Amino acid sequence: MNKRGLLIVLSGPSGVGKGTVLRSYLEKNPGARLSISATTRQPRTGEVSGVHYYFLTEKEFDKKIEQNEMLEYATYSGHQYGTPREPVEQMLEDGLDVILEIEVQGAMQIKESCPDAIFIFIMPPNMQELTRRLVDRKTEDEETIRRRLERSHSEIAMAKEYDYVVINDTIDNALEKLDAIVCAQKCSMNHMKQFVEEVLEDA
Amino acid sequence: MNKRGLLIVLSGPSGVGKGTVLRSYLEKNPGARLSISATTRQPRTGEVSGVHYYFLTEKEFDKKIEQNEMLEYATYSGHQYGTPREPVEQMLEDGLDVILEIEVQGAMQIKESCPDAIFIFIMPPNMQELTRRLVDRKTEDEETIRRRLERSHSEIAMAKEYDYVVINDTIDNALEKLDAIVCAQKCSMNHMKQFVEEVLEDA
Repeated sequence: MNKRGLLIVLSGPSGVGKGTVLRSYLEKNPGARLSISATTRQPRTGEVSGVHYYFLTEKEFDKKIEQNEMLEYATYSGHQYGTPREPVEQMLEDGLDVILEIEVQGAMQIKESCPDAIFIFIMPPNMQELTRRLVDRKTEDEETIRRRLERSHSEIAMAKEYDYVVINDTIDNALEKLDAIVCAQKCSMNHMKQFVEEVLEDA
Repeated sequence: MNKRGLLIVLSGPSGVGKGTVLRSYLEKNPGARLSISATTRQPRTGEVSGVHYYFLTEKEFDKKIEQNEMLEYATYSGHQYGTPREPVEQMLEDGLDVILEIEVQGAMQIKESCPDAIFIFIMPPNMQELTRRLVDRKTEDEETIRRRLERSHSEIAMAKEYDYVVINDTIDNALEKLDAIVCAQKCSMNHMKQFVEEVLEDA
């Protein structure tokens, strides 16, 4: 059997509840880890490098890009954000499943850099429910919600680039499906070829 | 969501315990059905057409082949056996998952006739265990067991043509993996594309 972990790319529109699903998944699955992003922005109070982010200088970040050491990267509000290759690679080698919670654009870069990754898109059961969840947060004004919904729509339009869709109607249903996808992936021929060969050689 | 059922092709070497896994799976999953084969051999006492087999004349069987009405077929001991397309298609249309328990050669024909089918190969944890299971049956002599093991070896060598490998170490483990594979398949983009489009149109 292939002992290497799985690289799982998780995306979904704002308000779909990715964070909650992800936290529950990580609690239930001690063999899974969340990838830590690198950024050039300043650490906020209480943020620890290597825990919340890897805090890098612009020069360090650019060097990693040049050396093909970033699996994906992008600039938001003047700061760079990205996924450093080495810690992800190390966890996969150790047999841990690594989850990248990233935006659609970053996910498309991962498709190029890590063709073995599996791509899961978390969907709301419908747009009404997504609107309701964004409104219920009560943290954003109407204009912000309108813009978020517009962006959600264009994000969902990219879902077809993913391997799997998980509907977050209830956390339990979403978790059951995530578990199933990861379990199935570990039974895929890609993952099991080595086992089959070992059984044949052993005979 | 795609309401059409899944076509699941299940193979595995003699002695691996396919039958037991399959019976438990069907008991647990009322939305799954086993496909009924057609054959030209005579019904044995108690066998009912449409339950155990569809009993056909040579002429009827040949006509179905000509009309592309057999998803796969082969001859064993002078009798024809095959999978009629129409009842399988009807069950899939009704949203039922249909399981074909067939040999590797038949499975390769299904790959041509039903490219959407998923192919699962049941494996023993190792060859020693397969030997033990065949010997423990106490129904075959040494020579038969030797020939079965030889055939098992060449069947396992074809496993790489399948999408998934399920190790039947315990029934519970095998069932859990089968469930996961079917659940994951129903989350695959192939199955979910329509749902994504509906959510987008609805917005």
